[in-house]
Amino acid sequence: MNNLNDKLKQLGIELEKPSVPAANYIPYNVVGNLVFISGQLPFQNGQIPIKGIVGKDVTMEQGIKMAELCALALLSQVKNACDDDLNRVVKVIKLGGFVACLPNFTQHPEIINGASDLMVKVFGDKGKHSRFAVGVPSLPRNAPVEVEGIFEIN
Amino acid sequence: MNNLNDKLKQLGIELEKPSVPAANYIPYNVVGNLVFISGQLPFQNGQIPIKGIVGKDVTMEQGIKMAELCALALLSQVKNACDDDLNRVVKVIKLGGFVACLPNFTQHPEIINGASDLMVKVFGDKGKHSRFAVGVPSLPRNAPVEVEGIFEIN
Amino acid sequence: MNNLNDKLKQLGIELEKPSVPAANYIPYNVVGNLVFISGQLPFQNGQIPIKGIVGKDVTMEQGIKMAELCALALLSQVKNACDDDLNRVVKVIKLGGFVACLPNFTQHPEIINGASDLMVKVFGDKGKHSRFAVGVPSLPRNAPVEVEGIFEIN
Repeated sequence: MNNLNDKLKQLGIELEKPSVPAANYIPYNVVGNLVFISGQLPFQNGQIPIKGIVGKDVTMEQGIKMAELCALALLSQVKNACDDDLNRVVKVIKLGGFVACLPNFTQHPEIINGASDLMVKVFGDKGKHSRFAVGVPSLPRNAPVEVEGIFEIN
Repeated sequence: MNNLNDKLKQLGIELEKPSVPAANYIPYNVVGNLVFISGQLPFQNGQIPIKGIVGKDVTMEQGIKMAELCALALLSQVKNACDDDLNRVVKVIKLGGFVACLPNFTQHPEIINGASDLMVKVFGDKGKHSRFAVGVPSLPRNAPVEVEGIFEIN
Repeated sequence: MNNLNDKLKQLGIELEKPSVPAANYIPYNVVGNLVFISGQLPFQNGQIPIKGIVGKDVTMEQGIKMAELCALALLSQVKNACDDDLNRVVKVIKLGGFVACLPNFTQHPEIINGASDLMVKVFGDKGKHSRFAVGVPSLPRNAPVEVEGIFEIN
């Protein structure tokens, strides 16, 4: 993995333009070598393609795909924080994964793996992160998944 | 914005005395230049004025007001961490917003904007933060909103 | 509290072997002097002894005990991060506590105190941390509690 910017192309990954919140918060804050990135929703072409509750309105496969879109949105933000050079990412430190689900749902890790797998696909060992995966009754804009992240950069 | 301590008065903001947890945890921990602040509930005069589930027992307007109270509680804690001098706040790094709501609720960002807007009102650009906003089925003491925060100080 | 490794024995605490995630994430990441530890479930002998929703399937007392098991799992991970020497822990910075519960549940702090009390029992004042305690509809593997943590080490 010599050039991470090239690697995205090799993987066929095209990042969306990083989203800009309409409110009084920002997509990320850099403090020292840490980038704290806001909770990302699964946008594709500016829309959330699949909405609702995982295990009810949304299948496992769809939920995993939505978690992957959240991870791509995190990548888009961290790329921006690195002045477009993903090679500056030292480590994916932590992901926080929220899955919209019902009380009887227990497969949160399988859903958030959609985000975790993408990080390792792109960054290799540098992509291995700590994380939490929990359920929530609902998420903004009826999104099925939201993922926040902390990255180390140089 | 030369003196942030004066600015609070100009804005007509009076902070509550920072709350002290009754249990084996503390309101904040400082590590390096970061202040990690515990999840704050919307206390006013020592009480949570509006309780329950946003969108069911609690209106949007009330929920936003409760998020603002959470932000004031965060301010009170960070002021304490800065030996009472808010000018030492370098940046509001991150807010984590939890909204008590039902599965069909989708307006978490609008609620947590109550906290975000207050940060920018007080700190200007230094108040712009990364954040997440998610739903939860319930919160301590039947509070409708809880907000945690990370601040950079010098 | 001169030797924390001895202290565990004095307290009659035996840590489980730190769990190793089966997926593309890791139990913790060290960045500078901070250890970010993944959300820990209440494992005992490789199993979650009590499952379900606190206040419905799980009593308060059981929930508190499960939060304590989450704290032990965090200890096991941070011990590993310190090359087995708990004396290198400078401070427990933050715990994030998730309690599986229904919308009418309000005693999240009492449950997460199970984790907080253990930290102070083991580390004394160094164990005092910031934290949040919130409800969630459900957790991985039907666990009643999940706790993530940030520790400062030297």
